[in-house]
Amino acid sequence: MRMVDIIHKKRDGGELTKEEIHFFIEEYTKGKIPDYQVSALLMAIYFRGMTADETAMLTMAMVNSGDTIDLSGIHGHKVDKHSTGGVGDKTSLIVAPLVASVGVPVAKMSGRGLGHTGGTIDKLESIAGFQVEMSKEEFIANVNQYKIAIAGQTGNLAPADKKLYALRDVTATVDSIPLIASSIMSKKIASGADSIVLDVKTGSGAFMKTLEDSEALAKEMVRIGKKLGRNTVAIISDMNQPLGFEVGNANEIKEVIRVLRGENVEDLKTLSLELAVQMVLLAGRYPYYETAKMELEKNLINGEAYQCFKQFIRAQHGNTEMVDHIEKLPDSKYHIEVKAEQNGYIAAIDAEAVGIAAMYLGAGRTTKEDQIDHSVGVTLKKKVGDEVTVGDTIAILHSNQENPFESVQKLREAYGYSKEQPLTRPLIYNVIK
Amino acid sequence: MRMVDIIHKKRDGGELTKEEIHFFIEEYTKGKIPDYQVSALLMAIYFRGMTADETAMLTMAMVNSGDTIDLSGIHGHKVDKHSTGGVGDKTSLIVAPLVASVGVPVAKMSGRGLGHTGGTIDKLESIAGFQVEMSKEEFIANVNQYKIAIAGQTGNLAPADKKLYALRDVTATVDSIPLIASSIMSKKIASGADSIVLDVKTGSGAFMKTLEDSEALAKEMVRIGKKLGRNTVAIISDMNQPLGFEVGNANEIKEVIRVLRGENVEDLKTLSLELAVQMVLLAGRYPYYETAKMELEKNLINGEAYQCFKQFIRAQHGNTEMVDHIEKLPDSKYHIEVKAEQNGYIAAIDAEAVGIAAMYLGAGRTTKEDQIDHSVGVTLKKKVGDEVTVGDTIAILHSNQENPFESVQKLREAYGYSKEQPLTRPLIYNVIK
Repeated sequence: MRMVDIIHKKRDGGELTKEEIHFFIEEYTKGKIPDYQVSALLMAIYFRGMTADETAMLTMAMVNSGDTIDLSGIHGHKVDKHSTGGVGDKTSLIVAPLVASVGVPVAKMSGRGLGHTGGTIDKLESIAGFQVEMSKEEFIANVNQYKIAIAGQTGNLAPADKKLYALRDVTATVDSIPLIASSIMSKKIASGADSIVLDVKTGSGAFMKTLEDSEALAKEMVRIGKKLGRNTVAIISDMNQPLGFEVGNANEIKEVIRVLRGENVEDLKTLSLELAVQMVLLAGRYPYYETAKMELEKNLINGEAYQCFKQFIRAQHGNTEMVDHIEKLPDSKYHIEVKAEQNGYIAAIDAEAVGIAAMYLGAGRTTKEDQIDHSVGVTLKKKVGDEVTVGDTIAILHSNQENPFESVQKLREAYGYSKEQPLTRPLIYNVIK
Repeated sequence: MRMVDIIHKKRDGGELTKEEIHFFIEEYTKGKIPDYQVSALLMAIYFRGMTADETAMLTMAMVNSGDTIDLSGIHGHKVDKHSTGGVGDKTSLIVAPLVASVGVPVAKMSGRGLGHTGGTIDKLESIAGFQVEMSKEEFIANVNQYKIAIAGQTGNLAPADKKLYALRDVTATVDSIPLIASSIMSKKIASGADSIVLDVKTGSGAFMKTLEDSEALAKEMVRIGKKLGRNTVAIISDMNQPLGFEVGNANEIKEVIRVLRGENVEDLKTLSLELAVQMVLLAGRYPYYETAKMELEKNLINGEAYQCFKQFIRAQHGNTEMVDHIEKLPDSKYHIEVKAEQNGYIAAIDAEAVGIAAMYLGAGRTTKEDQIDHSVGVTLKKKVGDEVTVGDTIAILHSNQENPFESVQKLREAYGYSKEQPLTRPLIYNVIK
């Protein structure tokens, strides 16, 4: 088998066989196929696409290129949740204890953030003492005992995907739906879940800017999951402004805790609940959507989800004093108010710009080696649809610099105004099963 | 400027600027842009094509990537001729002395053959003593004195093209018309010609199998030539069977000499004459097509072209005894007759298969390091349209092996038969100016 023939076939619109896809992924992982042939194939895939079979086979070949996590030691049906990435998206930290609180095990591997979106683990490390490093045995024992554990990614999961992603990034072949879908799904499947709930973001702050693209990606991932024996559901949710009011690390944890204590942070609570409902339905915990929703909402109000969160933090050596008293979580030295510059309505908040403003403050990494400052971030005081007059505080920067000029500038740019009240966008556009 | 942005732009159908094309070619030639980015760009070009401006700029950037031959020391208008490659195509060796015989200078750089098509220099080296290595001064002096010189390619012509071609070969990006056209034209322009006549082959034995593709390639090359100030004409000629009757080295030289002595080898003479006419017209030697044709044909019949050839061979230290007495040119030990296996008409002769049969005998190289046997080759005794009965000799193999099984087999496969006399194809389909 020759790589040049595989490129040729795809270039001419042919369908690659299982053998061809496995040959390409295996030999590339071993370093036996050069990058220059792979980038040509990726560009051909960009133009020709892949069939459902091809995409599923590519996903599985990437799973098989490295380690897979064996979660069979965990009792019950394991459902994983994945978001395509958004600013202020702290739903995992609400959903995990919420789902655990009704007895569905959550065994989550999480990453650190890079660029303008935060990582779940970075956020958790705002809580003093919190540990993400643990043995496989400890991880499984924790899930069995507390129904929840969140660990840093270990093992060599889908190394082919890592190598391909790095290559796609420098060859303008990132935004190809079969390539994005197989990349995400290969990591999820290698992580050992039985079922998967996907949160596909759409809008100006998302990787997928249009609803059409987001739906196409969601459908592709659901199709891959099903073909590979993982029941998969995707929610298409709005990312035309940050989710919730808090962006950063410690301040996102504070908002998580407020929701877990039953506070109604409108969009954040709604989306978290919907994700949790889909997860417990996939786990077969309840037969009906409405029952699941009612039970989960009850556990937000009666404190069960909150207790689950606290227990999980304690199990991973975090200081629960900081959970009970969120004012003890890190906060920055300075709080800079950003004021409205126009009268009217907030028409848009560019989520990416808000994420970048927070990153400049030190909440995110520009390179993998950067240290994070957990105490900094952004609190949005006004969101899309709010009426403002000049001088109203629209956001607060939590900063350890006295004059974070770049962040203020970026945040100002993030806000768009209109004379008329803007039309309300749905938070959840679609659920794809 | 970043290469990834250039790839992205082309991928999305944008038109590259002069600066972008020069950046890509210059930095790639210097080794500062990796192959994997270039192959992604090539595949994007395969799908998106290039505008006339882009193709001309790419050509010029490749010309500028290396040396260019300065032919300004030669008096008169220099016209070069290039063929896209065919089996039995020895027109250059007829056209050069023919054009020289009417006073138009021919300063030709030629290559050696690789694979199933022969190289002009390999053919010439069948003549004992013939030298292709000469100083630039000697080359120019020879052209000024004898109106003709053929030298091996010297200097570092269009190194970007060499590098790109090697990459295209392994990334399934060879057959893209703007890439083929710019590759050919960059070498021709770097070789210093004022005008260019192209012989674009079409048919089963050609790189371009369909008339449509051949015409598209021809038009693209003519367009590039004109944009870059070289008057260019392209002839689309048939390659659905080998040209002439002889394939090999010494036996092709014999056929060349026969035509130069006025013998009518139908297709070979017709095509050579047409190419020569286009060349002398571009050089401004005659005002009208018919005049040019008459004068050139006269020089085939009166021996002027033949004398020119002999003088050229003598000037380059070849043994002219072998020219005057072609039976003194090398011949092989064995002559194996291949017989017709059916009654009927010859419907097709796969030129590529004939070329491969000759290559197996030792007439061509399978790798660059192979030595050529000038004495071997194939003489076709029957061509398309000829009527045969079982047992008629259709071809003779000139071989130094007693039983060249593979070549016989390949040659048999090359011949196709029909019950009815096949329709005659035109030899020259079109002339594109």
